[in-house]
Amino acid sequence: MQLIRAEILTIGDEILYGQIVDTNSQWISKELDKIGIKTIRKTTVSDSESDILGALSEATSRADLVLITGGLGPTNDDLTKPCLAKFFKCGLELNEQALKEVKQIFIKIGRVLTETNRQQAYLPTKCRVVTNRVGTAPGMWFKNQGVAYISMPGVPHEMKTMMTEQILPRLSKIFQTPAIYHKMVKTIGIGESWLADEIGSWEKSLPPHIKLAYLPGLGEVKLRLTAVGKDQIELKKEIDSQINKLKSLVGKYIYGYNQDTLPSVVGDLLRGRKLTIASAESCSGGAVAQAITGISGSSDYFLGSIVAYQNNLKVSLLGVNPATLSSHGAVSEQTIFEMAEGARSILNADIGVATSGIAGPGGGSPDKPVGTVWIAYVDKENKISRKLSLYKDRAINIQLTTQAVLSLVRQRLLEMNGEKS
Amino acid sequence: MQLIRAEILTIGDEILYGQIVDTNSQWISKELDKIGIKTIRKTTVSDSESDILGALSEATSRADLVLITGGLGPTNDDLTKPCLAKFFKCGLELNEQALKEVKQIFIKIGRVLTETNRQQAYLPTKCRVVTNRVGTAPGMWFKNQGVAYISMPGVPHEMKTMMTEQILPRLSKIFQTPAIYHKMVKTIGIGESWLADEIGSWEKSLPPHIKLAYLPGLGEVKLRLTAVGKDQIELKKEIDSQINKLKSLVGKYIYGYNQDTLPSVVGDLLRGRKLTIASAESCSGGAVAQAITGISGSSDYFLGSIVAYQNNLKVSLLGVNPATLSSHGAVSEQTIFEMAEGARSILNADIGVATSGIAGPGGGSPDKPVGTVWIAYVDKENKISRKLSLYKDRAINIQLTTQAVLSLVRQRLLEMNGEKS
Repeated sequence: MQLIRAEILTIGDEILYGQIVDTNSQWISKELDKIGIKTIRKTTVSDSESDILGALSEATSRADLVLITGGLGPTNDDLTKPCLAKFFKCGLELNEQALKEVKQIFIKIGRVLTETNRQQAYLPTKCRVVTNRVGTAPGMWFKNQGVAYISMPGVPHEMKTMMTEQILPRLSKIFQTPAIYHKMVKTIGIGESWLADEIGSWEKSLPPHIKLAYLPGLGEVKLRLTAVGKDQIELKKEIDSQINKLKSLVGKYIYGYNQDTLPSVVGDLLRGRKLTIASAESCSGGAVAQAITGISGSSDYFLGSIVAYQNNLKVSLLGVNPATLSSHGAVSEQTIFEMAEGARSILNADIGVATSGIAGPGGGSPDKPVGTVWIAYVDKENKISRKLSLYKDRAINIQLTTQAVLSLVRQRLLEMNGEKS
Repeated sequence: MQLIRAEILTIGDEILYGQIVDTNSQWISKELDKIGIKTIRKTTVSDSESDILGALSEATSRADLVLITGGLGPTNDDLTKPCLAKFFKCGLELNEQALKEVKQIFIKIGRVLTETNRQQAYLPTKCRVVTNRVGTAPGMWFKNQGVAYISMPGVPHEMKTMMTEQILPRLSKIFQTPAIYHKMVKTIGIGESWLADEIGSWEKSLPPHIKLAYLPGLGEVKLRLTAVGKDQIELKKEIDSQINKLKSLVGKYIYGYNQDTLPSVVGDLLRGRKLTIASAESCSGGAVAQAITGISGSSDYFLGSIVAYQNNLKVSLLGVNPATLSSHGAVSEQTIFEMAEGARSILNADIGVATSGIAGPGGGSPDKPVGTVWIAYVDKENKISRKLSLYKDRAINIQLTTQAVLSLVRQRLLEMNGEKS
C-alpha cells in the first residue's frame, strides 16, 4: 500500500538564522507517523514571499499533505497569510468565525482586543478556519487539486493543541493509511560501532518490510525498528519476536523501550521494590533531583535532595567530616561516600546517591582536570563509587553525570533481585 | 553587497520520523550568520538515494554553499557517501589520510579497529578530507561549478568540532562576506501583541537596512534586530541607538541582550551586590537550583538548595511548622514563606526562594487545580509571594515556575538599588 506523503514547511527567519530550534516539525512528524502518514521532507524558509511561494509549489509536486507552521503572528514580519492568499489565488477578508474566536480568547484572559489582534481574523477566503483554542492566530485548512494544506501558528503549545484536538483526528478520517509499527530499543554503555558489530548478522536477517535505524545520542544509542504492512497486530508480533532475538545478543545494554527514559525505568524499579531514594548533589546542582522528579508520580519513591554547592554545607547539611574534605578534597571517593551516606541517613531513605566534580569550564587542576566527577550509590548493605572522566562542556558534563547516577542505581536494583543488569 | 547563500541539508529518517530533534542545523546557521553567510533554506530528507540526490540538485540551483549533516555512520542505513559519489560522478576508494586518522582515534580510546570502522575510511575520490578529531566518520569537502559542498557527521559534538576548528575559518577566507550585526533584546512579562502595540511606531521608523523580528517563547518574547551594511562598527552604533529608543518605550520588560539568560542576569546582579542565595524546592524538584548552577561561576553566589519533596522533610530539613502544613497545606502562601525563610536561615544565605505547587498531570483538587503554584522570595527585610495559575503540562509548569522565581529575584534586586524593574 502506498503511504500518504506529508511535507512539513516551517516559515521564519528566526529558525533560518538559528535564533531558535525548530521543535515543532519533530513533534508533527512523530504524530503523523503514529497514524501511518509518512513525512518525506522538512523544509525551512525565510519570511520572504518568493521563498514561501517557491516552497509551496515544490511541496505540491511531491506530497499529498503539506503542514505549515509559523508566520501567523500579528506583526509585520509575518507573511504566511498573504502568501497563502496569493498561492491559492484569493483575497484576504475578515472572517467572522475567526473574529468571534479571537474575541473569546480576549474575554477569557480579561484583556481588550487591540487593532493588531483584530487583524488576526483576516484570512484567505478559500480557507476553512481551524480554531485556535489557546491563542489568537487562527489555523487554516485548504484543499487544492487533491492536496491538503494546513497552516498553523509557530507557538508550540498552540500548534500542538490544534493538531491534537482537530487536525490529527480529521486526517485519520480523510486518508486511508497502512498499518505501521515502530518500536524503539534504548541501550546504554555501548558505542554505535560496537553495537553494529554485535548485531550485524541479526540485522542482515531482518525481512525487507522491517527496517532498523541507529540513533546515537549523548551517552546512549537507540535502535528503531519499523515494520510496514497490513495488520498492526501481526506487525507488533513480528517486531516483538525480532526484539527477543536482539535481547539474546545485547540484552545487558538494553534499559528500556519507546517512551521509557532512565528516570522512568529507575522510578518503576524503585516503586516495584518499595524503596525510597534521596540525593546529595554538588556538581550536578540539582539535575539528578530534577531528572527524577520530571516523572509524574515520583513522590512515591523520591524523598528529596540536598544540593550542597558550598563545602561548608556538605558538612552542616550532609554531615561530611571536615577532616575528609581537608585531606581528600570535595572531589574524591571519600567525600562522595560521606555525601551519599548523609543523604540516605538525614533524609531517611533506603538509597542515597551523590555527585561531586568539576563541571567546568573553569576550576580544573592538573590532578583533577575539568570533567573529573565522582558519583556514589549507598544502601543498607552496599556502597559503590565511580570516577568519571568527562569533557570540557559544563552542560554535557552535568547531563552525563545525571545519566551515570541513574544507570548505576538501575544496575544495583537489577542485581538486588539477581537479574542481569 | 550580495550575501553568500547557504543551504543546510540534513539527512536521516530519525529526524524525518521525529525520533530526534535536529539541533545541528540551528547551530550551523547561527555560526554562519556570525561570519555574514546567510542561510536561505534548511531541508531534511530521508536516508533514500533519490531523495538525497534530488535535494542536492535543488540546493545547487539556489546556493553558493551546501552544508550536509548525517548519514555518515558505519551502519548500513547510512547512504550519504555513495550518494555524494554518484552526484559528483566518481568512485568510492580507501582514503589513506582518512584511514590514518580513524586509526589514531582508535589508538586514543584504546580499542581495536573493526572492519565496520575501517569502512569509514572509504570516501568519494573527488573529495578533500575534513579531519574528524573526535569521532570515526571523516568529513568531506567538494567544489563543483562554483558551489562548495561540505558533508559532516550528524553527531553534534563531532560536527561542531569540525566546523569550529576547520570549516568556519576556511569559509571566512574563501568567501567575501558583508558586514552584518544582530542584537537580541529579551523581554519578560508582556505578550507579543501588546509589545507590538507598544513599539509599533518605533518599528515603522526603522531604516530599511535594519530588520526587526519577534520571537515569542515560553513565558517571554525576544526581539531580534538585524542590520546589514558595509561597516560593522557603524552598524553596531545604529543598532545601539535604536535600542536606546526601544528602552524608553518598553525598558521595564527588558531583562537582557544576546546570550543573557535569566539565570545569568540574576547571577550578575547577585555577584555585583555581593549577595548569596539558597532555595527550598518542592514542585520544581531541583529545577531552580539547576538553572542557577547551569551558569559557570555560580558558586560565587549560590549556596545550595533543599529539595523537600515530601512534607515531613519540609518540617525536618526546612523547619516548616507542622501546624502550618496541616491547616493550610503544602501549596499555600503560609507554607511557601516558611520554606523560603527556612532555606535562608538554615543555609545562611542573604536571600531565600521557594516553590510549592501541583506540577501535574495528577494531584489537583477543585480549590487547588493542577498548575496552582506558590513561589516566594525572602531577604532580611522583605518577603514577597506570588501565586501562579499554570497549565496541565508538568514540564512546562516546572519551567515557568523556575522562570517566575528568577524573574521575582531580578525585580527585587533591581528595586533594592532604586532601579526600575
